[in-house]
Amino acid sequence: MAAVRALWYEPGTLHLVDQRRLPGRYVVRRLHRLEEVAEAIRTMAVRGAPAIGVASAFGMALAARRPGADPEAAAVRLRATRPTAKDLFVGIEAVRSAWTAGEDPEAAAEAYAKRIIDECHAIGEAGASLFPDGSRVLTHCNAGALATVQWGTALAPLRVVHDRGATIFVWVDETRPLLQGARLTAWELGREHIPHAVIADNAAGHFMARGEVDAVIVGADRIARNGDFANKIGTYEKAVLAHEHGIPFYVAAPWSTFDPEAAEGSAIPIEERSPREVTGLGATPLAPAKSPARNPAFDVTPARFVRYFVTPQGLQRPGRFPRVRRRPGEGPH
Amino acid sequence: MAAVRALWYEPGTLHLVDQRRLPGRYVVRRLHRLEEVAEAIRTMAVRGAPAIGVASAFGMALAARRPGADPEAAAVRLRATRPTAKDLFVGIEAVRSAWTAGEDPEAAAEAYAKRIIDECHAIGEAGASLFPDGSRVLTHCNAGALATVQWGTALAPLRVVHDRGATIFVWVDETRPLLQGARLTAWELGREHIPHAVIADNAAGHFMARGEVDAVIVGADRIARNGDFANKIGTYEKAVLAHEHGIPFYVAAPWSTFDPEAAEGSAIPIEERSPREVTGLGATPLAPAKSPARNPAFDVTPARFVRYFVTPQGLQRPGRFPRVRRRPGEGPH
Repeated sequence: MAAVRALWYEPGTLHLVDQRRLPGRYVVRRLHRLEEVAEAIRTMAVRGAPAIGVASAFGMALAARRPGADPEAAAVRLRATRPTAKDLFVGIEAVRSAWTAGEDPEAAAEAYAKRIIDECHAIGEAGASLFPDGSRVLTHCNAGALATVQWGTALAPLRVVHDRGATIFVWVDETRPLLQGARLTAWELGREHIPHAVIADNAAGHFMARGEVDAVIVGADRIARNGDFANKIGTYEKAVLAHEHGIPFYVAAPWSTFDPEAAEGSAIPIEERSPREVTGLGATPLAPAKSPARNPAFDVTPARFVRYFVTPQGLQRPGRFPRVRRRPGEGPH
Repeated sequence: MAAVRALWYEPGTLHLVDQRRLPGRYVVRRLHRLEEVAEAIRTMAVRGAPAIGVASAFGMALAARRPGADPEAAAVRLRATRPTAKDLFVGIEAVRSAWTAGEDPEAAAEAYAKRIIDECHAIGEAGASLFPDGSRVLTHCNAGALATVQWGTALAPLRVVHDRGATIFVWVDETRPLLQGARLTAWELGREHIPHAVIADNAAGHFMARGEVDAVIVGADRIARNGDFANKIGTYEKAVLAHEHGIPFYVAAPWSTFDPEAAEGSAIPIEERSPREVTGLGATPLAPAKSPARNPAFDVTPARFVRYFVTPQGLQRPGRFPRVRRRPGEGPH
C-alpha cells in the first residue's frame, strides 16, 4: 500500500501537503511559525477535522519554541481559524494544557498525532466487518488519510477491506464547492488501486434508486452527545437519501470529534465560507459576476439517520456511545 | 421585464443563444442546416426540453428548404441527438407530419414554437397561486426562458408573481455537472432583478432543515402516464428532501413533455453523457486524470413526490392529468 500522509513534524518544522493543489500538484509546505499554521488551516491548505486537530497541536508546539510565547494567546489564535470541527479545539487543548503544566509541548503534540493515527487505524479494523466482499460504498467529501494524517476515518475500513483482498467499489461524491471528493478521495483511492467512480453530488440518489449503493460511510467534524453530527455540506442530503432507500449509513470518527459539551446538533456552530467558493472555481467564474450566493460549509445530520458510529473502540449505536470525558483526548470511559 | 429568448427564426436561419457561453458571453449563433441544429442540440448549445423541441422543429424546417430533402431521414438524424426529453420527438414529429402531408414545414415549425411559448405563458398564470407573497422557492437546473424559448416552465410562475409586485426569493441549485443553475438561472433572474442566491446542490437540504425553503419547483424532460418524470440529475434528491421536510414539490411542463407511451418512469431512457463533464470544467481538471467517473444526465422521480404538475390547463394531480393524445402536440382531451 502506498501510504498517504497529510503532514509530519520535525523539531521546528511542520511539513504539510498543500491540499488545495491536489490532484494537479503534490506540494509539501514547510511551516515554522504558529501564524503560518493558522493560515494553512483557515485557507484549507490542510483540512479534515482530525488533520486540523493535529496541525493545530503542532502549531502550538511551534509557538512554544519562541521565547516568551504565551500558551493562552497561541490557543486563542488557532481557535479563531475555523469554528466547526471539534478536533481543532481538542488538538489545541492537548498541547496548551501540557505547555501550561510545564511539560514538553512538542512531545505533547507528537503524542496527540500518534493517538489520532492509532485511533484511525483502529477505526479501520472496527469498521471492516460492515463491508462484505463486493460492497459498493458511497462516501462524501474526503475522510481519508489527507483528512486525518494517516489511514482516514471513513476510508480506513475500506482500505482494510481492500488490503485483505476483498472486492470493494467506492462511489465518490465530488463534493462541491471545494471538490474534496473528486480531488482528494479519488486521488487517494487511485494511488491504492481501489476501484471507484467520481459522480456529481446530484447523482447519488439516482444510483441508490437503481440499487447500486450498498452502504454510505462518512467522517464527521463534530458529534453531539445525542449522536447528531456535523460534517461537510451535503452529508445530510446523503443521509436522508440513504434512509429513503434503506441503505445503512455509517459515521467514522476518532474520539477527538465527539463533543461532550454539545447536547445535540443545534449546539454545533456551522461555518459559512466565502460565496466565491460557489460562484467561481479559482479564477474561472461559474455564475454571473453579481450573483449572490450562500456557502454553508457544513450541515447537521440527526442521529436517527445513523446506523452505527465507527469508533476506535468499535461500532456504537447513535446516542449510546460511552460518555466522552471532558478532559480532552482521553477517549471514552 | 427584460425578455429573454433562447432562439428565433427567420426563413432559412435559426438564431440561437449559445448557452454554453453564458453567463460570460452572450453569443448568438446563426444556423442554416439541419446538421448544424443537430450538433447544437447534441453539444447543448441549446438545451432544455421545450427549447430543444422547438429547435428540432426548426431543424426540420431548415432541412425542408433543401431540394430533394427527405422528411424521414431528417427526423432520424434529429432524433439521434439526445434520448431523454420527450419534447424533442414531439417537435420533430409536428413538422415531419406536416411536411409529409404536403403542408408548409416552416409554418408548422413556427406554429409549434408559438404553441410552446403560449403554453409556457399559461403555466406562469396557472402556477402563480402556488407562491404567496414572501415565498422562498428552490429550483434545480434551468427551466427558464432559455430552456423553453420564452417565459420558462418552472420559472414562469415565479416571473408572474414577481411582475405582479409580490416578493419572491429563489434558491438556485448550481446543478452540477454543467451548472445550468449557476450559469443560466442566475443569469435570467439577475436580468429581471428577482432576488436569489446560488447554492451548491449539497446545500439545499441544509436550508430545508432550517425552514428556509417554502416550495420546490422544477421543469421536466419527460413525464410518464402515471406521473413519474425524468428531469436533470439531482432532481430526485431534491424531491426526496422536500418530502422529508413536508415542503411542496411542483413540476411545470407544457404538453409536449408528457409521454402517453411511457406507462411509468422505468420506461424513460436516461442519457449518460461523457465522464469528462464531471472530471473537468472546460480545460480545468477537477479530478485526477485517470479517475473513472459516471455521468447520468437525468434521473427519474416517482409521482408520489409531486404535489402538483403545473400545466397550461392548470394544476393537475400526479397520475390524474387528462390523458394526453397520441397525436403529437395536441394537448389533453
